[in-house]
Amino acid sequence: MSYRPASLPIGVFDSGVGGLTVLRALREALPNESFLYLGDTARLPYGTKSAKTVERYASQAAQVLVDRGVKLLVLACNTVSAVAVEPLRARFRPLPVVGVVGPGAQAACDATQTGHILITATEGTIRGGAYERAIRQRRPDAVVVGQPCPLFVALAEEDWTRGEVPELAARRYLEPRLEADPQLDTVVLGCTHFPVLAGVVETVVGEGVRVVDSARTTAAAVSALLDTAGLHRDASSEPTLTLLATDDAERFARVGAVFLATSLRPEDVELVDL
Amino acid sequence: MSYRPASLPIGVFDSGVGGLTVLRALREALPNESFLYLGDTARLPYGTKSAKTVERYASQAAQVLVDRGVKLLVLACNTVSAVAVEPLRARFRPLPVVGVVGPGAQAACDATQTGHILITATEGTIRGGAYERAIRQRRPDAVVVGQPCPLFVALAEEDWTRGEVPELAARRYLEPRLEADPQLDTVVLGCTHFPVLAGVVETVVGEGVRVVDSARTTAAAVSALLDTAGLHRDASSEPTLTLLATDDAERFARVGAVFLATSLRPEDVELVDL
Repeated sequence: MSYRPASLPIGVFDSGVGGLTVLRALREALPNESFLYLGDTARLPYGTKSAKTVERYASQAAQVLVDRGVKLLVLACNTVSAVAVEPLRARFRPLPVVGVVGPGAQAACDATQTGHILITATEGTIRGGAYERAIRQRRPDAVVVGQPCPLFVALAEEDWTRGEVPELAARRYLEPRLEADPQLDTVVLGCTHFPVLAGVVETVVGEGVRVVDSARTTAAAVSALLDTAGLHRDASSEPTLTLLATDDAERFARVGAVFLATSLRPEDVELVDL
Repeated sequence: MSYRPASLPIGVFDSGVGGLTVLRALREALPNESFLYLGDTARLPYGTKSAKTVERYASQAAQVLVDRGVKLLVLACNTVSAVAVEPLRARFRPLPVVGVVGPGAQAACDATQTGHILITATEGTIRGGAYERAIRQRRPDAVVVGQPCPLFVALAEEDWTRGEVPELAARRYLEPRLEADPQLDTVVLGCTHFPVLAGVVETVVGEGVRVVDSARTTAAAVSALLDTAGLHRDASSEPTLTLLATDDAERFARVGAVFLATSLRPEDVELVDL
């Protein structure tokens, strides 16, 4: 049998479990594809580490996925996407490498009419300014404001995604921004943890404001790339899902089940060293 | 002038800023003492790392403090206290080494009448079981239950320590425990982040339940140790406070100000490598 890259899985890499929201969107958009996911749970969080360290860690993780065989690599982590897309493209050429920041920024530019966009993310992502740069590249006149929402990470990991606590937290983060800029019409969920809180955010911002997340738009970008490259897997056999983590399969399975919206057992998670 | 160890500062070590609640209690209990604090912000969180790694990191940090000169070492971190007190005592003998778990457990045993004690902490501390063991050593018939409260960490770091969001979060964590065991009469704040939420926790548990934190009881244990060893600093000169961190002085100053209940500027924090 000749080498058939289309049959290989899509590799997905994140510093932990957050990227499973991206994996979920990918599986929904591409039900015939196989996936190989790696969460570097032993070394998270990446958001507090230097760009050089993040690039090195991402490179090691990508090597594991490439060694196992993948046809495309998704960097399902805002921190990694902000610094490592170009270095990983250079290193693993011709493997296509897709980050989440570019598709998220594109989705925001497609959704906004006024050009006034609010980025919600971790402190590190806001401070790094990657979304703001990616949006301005596409729409130089955009008015981009960042709001760090660190509590959203804890709420998502606790699966407190409906009800009073997340709604009050969302009001506290978002209402001052909405009041300060009546022209604001688009909110970007710029952290892979946040899509599980999309419902609460939509309730708080109301009907006049669009909420976009990079998970769905990254899945759309990957789908388009498979179209262009003719790399879609044929549906003659069942697609596979392999989950790798660098530490704590029990917690990965418990929190990951929330993000992937499926049941997961610790024995479904294979531990690897980087 | 001869070597006068009593004039040296007390060394305080934590994986980040949480230990500043312990430093605050120490400064309140011992206003004449000088302090040298080190937060290993570059490598936090420790809670997800193996015991061996935590011990190695703690040993490196302790060496920095010992090299600068300290008369006593406080491990102001539950994760470190749970695994590294004995190894560090062995390595730095005769330097006195005090953790937070022992004093916290002692405070719980002093406070409880029924022996029914609830530990609130991070997931890692609860899973490690150090508080439960330390309490049972002192009171073998104690009924000890652990409740992970990961959202408390984010709330403390955001300085959301009063009002609806922390109160609802505390109710969600604590009320099921209070209802399940009417004999529960003591709650331990078993994470260095939690003392800033003590008011909210006290409101939720009501008057019949005592809330103890390891910050104040650790300060009392250190004071007693200085008494015994005759190591109190004389008050003839102003005490000093030196803050060291391994990364991100800006965030250390901002979040640390909440925990230390004082104003802090980034230039008050000296960056060191471990």
